[in-house]
Amino acid sequence: MIFALLLSLVGFGQTKIPSFRIVPLGVKGGADESNLSAYMLAPAGSDHYICLDAGTLHAGIEKAIENKVFNTLPEQVLRQNIKGYLISHSHLDHLAGLILNSPDDTAKNIYALAACIETFKTRYFTWQAWANFGDQGETPQLKKYHYQVLEPEIETRLDNTDLTVQAFPLSHSNLTSTAFLVRSGDSYLLYLGDTGPDDIEKSDHLKTLWQNIAPLIRANKLKAIMIEVSFPSEQSDKALFGHLTPHWLLVELHQLQEIANIPLSGFKTIITHQKPPQRNMERIKQQLAKENDLSLQLVYPVQGKVIDLY
Amino acid sequence: MIFALLLSLVGFGQTKIPSFRIVPLGVKGGADESNLSAYMLAPAGSDHYICLDAGTLHAGIEKAIENKVFNTLPEQVLRQNIKGYLISHSHLDHLAGLILNSPDDTAKNIYALAACIETFKTRYFTWQAWANFGDQGETPQLKKYHYQVLEPEIETRLDNTDLTVQAFPLSHSNLTSTAFLVRSGDSYLLYLGDTGPDDIEKSDHLKTLWQNIAPLIRANKLKAIMIEVSFPSEQSDKALFGHLTPHWLLVELHQLQEIANIPLSGFKTIITHQKPPQRNMERIKQQLAKENDLSLQLVYPVQGKVIDLY
Repeated sequence: MIFALLLSLVGFGQTKIPSFRIVPLGVKGGADESNLSAYMLAPAGSDHYICLDAGTLHAGIEKAIENKVFNTLPEQVLRQNIKGYLISHSHLDHLAGLILNSPDDTAKNIYALAACIETFKTRYFTWQAWANFGDQGETPQLKKYHYQVLEPEIETRLDNTDLTVQAFPLSHSNLTSTAFLVRSGDSYLLYLGDTGPDDIEKSDHLKTLWQNIAPLIRANKLKAIMIEVSFPSEQSDKALFGHLTPHWLLVELHQLQEIANIPLSGFKTIITHQKPPQRNMERIKQQLAKENDLSLQLVYPVQGKVIDLY
Repeated sequence: MIFALLLSLVGFGQTKIPSFRIVPLGVKGGADESNLSAYMLAPAGSDHYICLDAGTLHAGIEKAIENKVFNTLPEQVLRQNIKGYLISHSHLDHLAGLILNSPDDTAKNIYALAACIETFKTRYFTWQAWANFGDQGETPQLKKYHYQVLEPEIETRLDNTDLTVQAFPLSHSNLTSTAFLVRSGDSYLLYLGDTGPDDIEKSDHLKTLWQNIAPLIRANKLKAIMIEVSFPSEQSDKALFGHLTPHWLLVELHQLQEIANIPLSGFKTIITHQKPPQRNMERIKQQLAKENDLSLQLVYPVQGKVIDLY
């Protein structure tokens, strides 16, 4: 009762108990090699991060060091602070940084659904495209990275961190993408890789996801959602290629609100994967400001700039 | 006779007739996604460039625009000024920018030796890793890029430019890499992709290349060499992975001087592909300054900063 009262007074995300720290290493959805989807995530107070997607690592770590987020050399952040990678799907803009930095990295796990791991083995960590730093696929295997296949919805511990993850499949055009529900103690963060709307993808993956997280929203345990908005709302449904617009984001989050049966007013919604050119990214922001009839707390991540969740 | 006198007075690269313009879009040899090997090259006075390797495009074009090299939008440089790509080999740090920018690009050719084209078809422009923007490989083929296989040493016209190219195979550990000899009228530029020294690679590819360019050096038609130095000289021969150090660069260029039978003093030598960390890159520069007993004119390219050749 006291808790419910407190919740109703402070609203979503207004409690002052820190839960997670996010360090965005890259925030854009393609084209700009210096700033592609990658987000370090740790429990508040911990230096042991996992990395959600890995489009850009090195250039983002350098930005974070400039901003005094880390007080060390770039290679130490890569080697010591990142304890594993959660890769949402196998498109190059979500993992190029992992491949390019692999020679300098330390041994760790790559967590993903089976189809994504398969593409690492047959496309990227091959001896024609790079070198095989994995522990499966072409020989010789350098075995720096251990492939850890995630089973949908099964909670999995993330080695060398105090985090666990549950993976939920998403529809992204011809590929299966992934939403990662990360837990630290009793706090959760939901990160979605690229996804189209259920209506366009002829899928119920988002609906299933919303059903799964609804109880966490009601209990104020879900601290934020990180979700993509790739194109402005003018993008035609036929040219979405498995992505969301401001319009479709709001359609989906109305669906979530209905399923959760609680107002999403004030709920922290971190907008990822905006695609250049710059004028489109600005347009997405304008449209979201205008169409935000749920009163979501919209957050635009900046490369190398900390987001602390409460 | 007058020409010979003039040449002996002014030395290499000191004539005042402009030949080429280089716009480096990325200069480093790995890890830093914002600045990987890619060099736009055009005849002096032309806006029609080819791009030698394509590790980083977008981030380099933005730097060049900041420096007022181009007075247009980034997407226009990509779409209008780059008329084709010459890719030296299939490692990701030499072509990631091409893949990542393909959705925004216009139709053009990708020129490379057969093995490199094969890797585009089977690894990168596949529907698991990206989309097939090529005109061969997995169906459906979006056919934005035409694969043009180069035959070693056969001069090939580069469409929509006033340039031609001859390709020479190089040894790069398990891969065949490529040197591109680009011609504009009576002027030449030689760009080498990643390469190890002949001694370590058990190869004669560099020797063959030196024999082919020796007459151009004697005739003062070769305006510059762009060549890689990836590691400081301390790197052990066993850990070169098909790369050069300051020590091995000098060994190879002594070989070239002997074959050309003319002093290389003052010859413009553009050093590419230095690998981070920064302290290694500084060490390479120090070692080259110290070991440069050929009195080469050493040039360190900077992302987005023009190099004009004469």
